[in-house]
Amino acid sequence: MLGRDQIEAAAERIASRVRRTPVLRVTGVELGLTVPVAFKMEFLQHTGSFKPRGAFNRMLAASLPAAGVIAASGGNHGAAVAYAAQALGVPAEVYVPTTAPAAKVARIAGYGARVVQIGASYNEAMLASQARAGESGALEVHAYDHPDVLAGQGTVAREVEQDAPELTHVLVATGGGGLIGGIAAWYADRAMVVSVEPEGCPALHEALAAGHPVAAPVGGIAADSLGARQVGAAMFPLAQAHVRQAVLVRDAAILAARRLLWERLRILVEPGGATALAALTSGAFSPPPGASVGVILCGANTDPGKWEHP
Amino acid sequence: MLGRDQIEAAAERIASRVRRTPVLRVTGVELGLTVPVAFKMEFLQHTGSFKPRGAFNRMLAASLPAAGVIAASGGNHGAAVAYAAQALGVPAEVYVPTTAPAAKVARIAGYGARVVQIGASYNEAMLASQARAGESGALEVHAYDHPDVLAGQGTVAREVEQDAPELTHVLVATGGGGLIGGIAAWYADRAMVVSVEPEGCPALHEALAAGHPVAAPVGGIAADSLGARQVGAAMFPLAQAHVRQAVLVRDAAILAARRLLWERLRILVEPGGATALAALTSGAFSPPPGASVGVILCGANTDPGKWEHP
Repeated sequence: MLGRDQIEAAAERIASRVRRTPVLRVTGVELGLTVPVAFKMEFLQHTGSFKPRGAFNRMLAASLPAAGVIAASGGNHGAAVAYAAQALGVPAEVYVPTTAPAAKVARIAGYGARVVQIGASYNEAMLASQARAGESGALEVHAYDHPDVLAGQGTVAREVEQDAPELTHVLVATGGGGLIGGIAAWYADRAMVVSVEPEGCPALHEALAAGHPVAAPVGGIAADSLGARQVGAAMFPLAQAHVRQAVLVRDAAILAARRLLWERLRILVEPGGATALAALTSGAFSPPPGASVGVILCGANTDPGKWEHP
Repeated sequence: MLGRDQIEAAAERIASRVRRTPVLRVTGVELGLTVPVAFKMEFLQHTGSFKPRGAFNRMLAASLPAAGVIAASGGNHGAAVAYAAQALGVPAEVYVPTTAPAAKVARIAGYGARVVQIGASYNEAMLASQARAGESGALEVHAYDHPDVLAGQGTVAREVEQDAPELTHVLVATGGGGLIGGIAAWYADRAMVVSVEPEGCPALHEALAAGHPVAAPVGGIAADSLGARQVGAAMFPLAQAHVRQAVLVRDAAILAARRLLWERLRILVEPGGATALAALTSGAFSPPPGASVGVILCGANTDPGKWEHP
C-alpha cells in the first residue's frame, strides 16, 4: 500500500515542476467557527487545481514513449495532463465527451494538447482513449486510479504537514479519490483525514458503506470536478485504513461556503474547491474542542463573471 | 524618521488582530518574465486590503477616547477603520462623500460604523470629519499620513523579508503613500523599493520630481484605491531616502496584469491590487538579470461578477 516513501520520492520528482502553494491560517471566528483553520491554497497550482502533481509524477516516474501521453477528462485532469505534457515536451491527446463545453475544450487545447471529442459520456470517451492508447502506444495517465497519481497528489499533504504541523484534522473533497487517497497515505492517522462529498456525488461514502468501490450517482453543483462514478481501486484500501469519517454536504452548503470564502477571505474557488470547507461551516463535520483543522482548497476553475449564478 | 524599531513594535501590537498573509513564489515564466517573483498575498487580509494593519496600530498605540475613532474614506481605509473599531469594541464614525456608491457605504456600515455621507468630494468629507472630531473628541485615524499608520503598513515588509529573504526588489502600488512609506522604512535599501502608480494618479512620481508633495491628478481605473491627491508629509522623506524608482503604468497594463493574475494564478484582485505587477508585465520596470522580485498584492475589493467590465 502507498506510503510516505513513495510520496517523498514523488515530491522530489515533481519539485521543479509544481508550485509550492502556501498555507493561510485564520482564527475561524470570521467563518463563524470555534476552531482555527489552516487553508492549503492549492487552487493556486498551475492550471488552477492540484491535478498537475499527480500528472507530473505519473509521467516522470514512467519512461515516456514517443507517442506521448493520453488521458480522458474534460475537466481539471485534462488541463493538467495537457499542461504537464507541454512542460515536458511530449505530445498529449485528451479525450473528452462530445458534451464537453467549448470553453473547457479550448482550455485543454490551449496547453497544446490534441483534443478528441468522442462519446456521449465520460465513460465512452475513456473507453475510446484506451482503445487509442492500445494503437498509439501512448502512456495512459488516469485521473486518479494509479499509484503514481496518488503519490503525486499526496505531496499536498506533505507540504501541509510541514507548514501546519499543528493540525489535528484535515478535510478533503473527494471525487475519484486521488487526492484524499494520497493525503490519507501521507498522514496515516497522524492527523484525522475527513472526506467531504456533495450529496449528489457520494462515491466514497457509498464505497465505505459497501466495503468496496461501487457505482454511485453523479450530480449537483460540484459534479464537474468531483463527479466520479466510482472511487479508484488503488485508493480504496487507503481510505478504509486512514479516512476517519466520510461526510456529505448539500449543494446549498457548498455555495454558502464558496460565498464565505470570497466575502471573508477574497478567495474565489470552484464549487469542488469549497466543498471541504462546507463540511465545517454547515456543521456536517463538527470538530472537537481544541481541534486545529486543515482545509484543502483544491481548485478554482470557475468563471468569476458567473460565480453568483453558477 | 520612521525605522525598524517602530515597525517591530507595531508588529507586536497588532499580531493578534491581523492575518499573517502568505507569500506565493512563481518562476515568472508563466507571466512571461525572466525573473522569479514572490507575491505577498496581502489581499487576503481582513476587509480585503492591507489597511487594517495601519488602522489597528494607530488605535492600539493611542489611548482610545470614549468617543471612539473617526475617519474619512469611502474605500478600503473606511472599511478597515470600521473593522478595527468593531474588533476593539469602540464606536467608529466614517465620513464619506455623498457620491460614494451604496455598496461601499453598506460595507462600512456592515462592520458596525456610523457612516456620515457629506460633501461633494473626499476632501469635503475629510474637512467635515475633522470638524466633527474637534467636537466629539474621537481619535482621527488618517488613511496614510501618520507615523503609526505608516509603521502598521510597514509590517507587511517585515513579513515579506522573513518569508522571502532573497528579494532584491520590492514593487509596491502607491496611493497616498502609507504602504510604500512603511515598506521603504523597513527595507531602507536592503532591497530596492520601487513605487508603481497609474498614469492617472501620479502623486508620488510628481512629488519626487518636485522635491516635495504636490497636488496631482486623480483618475483612471485604480483611482478608487490609489487616488490620493497628494502623498503624505510623513512618508515623503522616507520615499526620498529609500524609494529607488517611481514608475507609471497605463490603465490597460493594470487590467492586463489583473487578467494574468486570474488566468495564470487564480488570484482575483482589484485594479489597485494589480498595479505593482503591471510594472513588471508591461516592462515599465525592467529587473536586472539575477533579480528576485517581490510584488505586493495589496487589495481585492472588487465585484467578481463585474471584473471583466470594471
